[in-house]
Amino acid sequence: MPESVRPLPRRAMIGRPGPLTIGIDIGGTKVLGGVVDSFGTVLTSRRRVTPGRSVPAVEDTIVQLVDELSAEHDVAAVGIGAAGFVDAARATVLFSPHLAWRDEPLREALMRRIKVPVVVDNDANTAALAECRFGAGIGHRYVLCITLGTGIGGAFVIDNRVFRGQNGMAGEFGHMQVVPDGHRCECGNRGCWEQYASGNALVRDARELVLANSPVAQDLKDRIGGDVSLLTGPLVTEAAQAGDPLAIELLADIGTWLGVGLAGMTAAFDPGAIVVGGGVSAAGELLLAPTRRAFSRTLVGRGHRPEPVITAAALGPDAGFVGAADMARSAARRSRRRRRHRRERSLFSR
Amino acid sequence: MPESVRPLPRRAMIGRPGPLTIGIDIGGTKVLGGVVDSFGTVLTSRRRVTPGRSVPAVEDTIVQLVDELSAEHDVAAVGIGAAGFVDAARATVLFSPHLAWRDEPLREALMRRIKVPVVVDNDANTAALAECRFGAGIGHRYVLCITLGTGIGGAFVIDNRVFRGQNGMAGEFGHMQVVPDGHRCECGNRGCWEQYASGNALVRDARELVLANSPVAQDLKDRIGGDVSLLTGPLVTEAAQAGDPLAIELLADIGTWLGVGLAGMTAAFDPGAIVVGGGVSAAGELLLAPTRRAFSRTLVGRGHRPEPVITAAALGPDAGFVGAADMARSAARRSRRRRRHRRERSLFSR
Repeated sequence: MPESVRPLPRRAMIGRPGPLTIGIDIGGTKVLGGVVDSFGTVLTSRRRVTPGRSVPAVEDTIVQLVDELSAEHDVAAVGIGAAGFVDAARATVLFSPHLAWRDEPLREALMRRIKVPVVVDNDANTAALAECRFGAGIGHRYVLCITLGTGIGGAFVIDNRVFRGQNGMAGEFGHMQVVPDGHRCECGNRGCWEQYASGNALVRDARELVLANSPVAQDLKDRIGGDVSLLTGPLVTEAAQAGDPLAIELLADIGTWLGVGLAGMTAAFDPGAIVVGGGVSAAGELLLAPTRRAFSRTLVGRGHRPEPVITAAALGPDAGFVGAADMARSAARRSRRRRRHRRERSLFSR
Repeated sequence: MPESVRPLPRRAMIGRPGPLTIGIDIGGTKVLGGVVDSFGTVLTSRRRVTPGRSVPAVEDTIVQLVDELSAEHDVAAVGIGAAGFVDAARATVLFSPHLAWRDEPLREALMRRIKVPVVVDNDANTAALAECRFGAGIGHRYVLCITLGTGIGGAFVIDNRVFRGQNGMAGEFGHMQVVPDGHRCECGNRGCWEQYASGNALVRDARELVLANSPVAQDLKDRIGGDVSLLTGPLVTEAAQAGDPLAIELLADIGTWLGVGLAGMTAAFDPGAIVVGGGVSAAGELLLAPTRRAFSRTLVGRGHRPEPVITAAALGPDAGFVGAADMARSAARRSRRRRRHRRERSLFSR
């Protein structure tokens, strides 16, 4: 099992250490979990493949991970970052475009099987919070966080708090339409942003060219021995980093779509910083240079306004569970405070 | 001169009456101004045609309006709602897509010619504030306000405060790209939302069909005696209200583009209410029924989430200057408080 220990970010060292907590990040393709301390340091972590679209199987995977991790460390709470809409009470997954959850009372189900308090939030919310508390967003008040993975997740974080909106569902940026009558999206619509700027989009385009036997796709084809089922986002990124012109072009396309969308988001939200994380962001400047170019070319009022900085996320794939663990810690602190209040009240009423 | 007096909305009646203030709303085609009391009631109002794109001429128009209105009422401050980006200090118009302002220190220029305090803000911000304080947004915490006029203005109002972002420029929803390589926009980009959902878009499409001598445009052609320069948004709305199938269709197209864009905004912001104002909203259900249909058809997670109410603005064309006047009142109150503090401090230091 991989074990990662990151150096402590300086800013996060301020204050008394809190309890250890577990964070679990459930994405469309993989489940990551780890034990995290109150400075954002990952003490131990685990990785699983998402077990298809079966609701009970995903639940079992979560419980197994928690059991394994709790065996190694004494933890106070568990935070879940789930790829889907989570209700305002942070208990129920209302809808998940990439998983089978529909009005799924995930928190309640897990509370029956896990002994410590559990909180559930959107995985992009938890990743965004982690980046703002311990990573690339430190020092900015208005941070637009974008997670480029299977789809586009994201959250707008204001003063280290995730902006949630009326029903706790803000931040589903990936399902804004950017191409009328465009590619079909798993959410049921057409032309969603994440159909053009995401790992899925990258793989779809690469696959199309390989299947068409395009001579420009020869390098990619060689890498997969002609078997398109082996084509993944990381593989395209690897090819681009090795200098394959097509792979570089495909990443630039994703970056351009990302930049145009971010220019629109900036017109609407006016963030001070934009943090791009998620699997695709591992491509670094191969993605972000085209993103910045398209952004600066498309932003309304360009030249007459300050522009936000666009940076890569700092915490890598851990961000989702680190943020979930951080939310769980806050929840544990609140519930401890409530218990103490109740105890004090009962002492006085004796 | 037209004079409009609206009944006092109940909610706004709470509290001690404040001073009278002037609000001025400068749009791409017209300038509206009025004297407004602290309950949002318009005591008197004036209207001028926007004098082209000359910066000094627009300034003169504002000063003349203020002089006229101040002659009738004793006012404490002046608020300007300007069609453009206004800086965080609410003093300088950084950029205006429809007017000639570029880094124009409008507030300072006006302060030299107007005796009372002046504040400047984006016109869509002022209109949104008015709707939330005195109109259709009352009772909602997260209100997305859209002003459909020459373009799309808008503001996201949270707890009766305009969300401004890092540099005070949030809310330029009209310049989010919705069609790649789409219609040219005055902002310099292509495919901006307001090129598909606005008064300009309505007139452009109607004009195209009239000029093409399309038989479906006969009714519109008759109304303008064949002179396309007479074709305006209100005229298309009038034709639609009289039953012209093409005009109804054109408004439905605008409504559909509006609904799709609002679904995207809701994915991102999750508002509790959406208030649609501006000139085009005078079409009422001819616009809003198609808007709601497209919205409900396009919203991600539909059926698994609460949907925001979509309503027409309540204050009509007055909203922009009523909100500007309200902002000016708050500014006057703050400056009075500061003066009092200074006076008290100087008394103590004697």
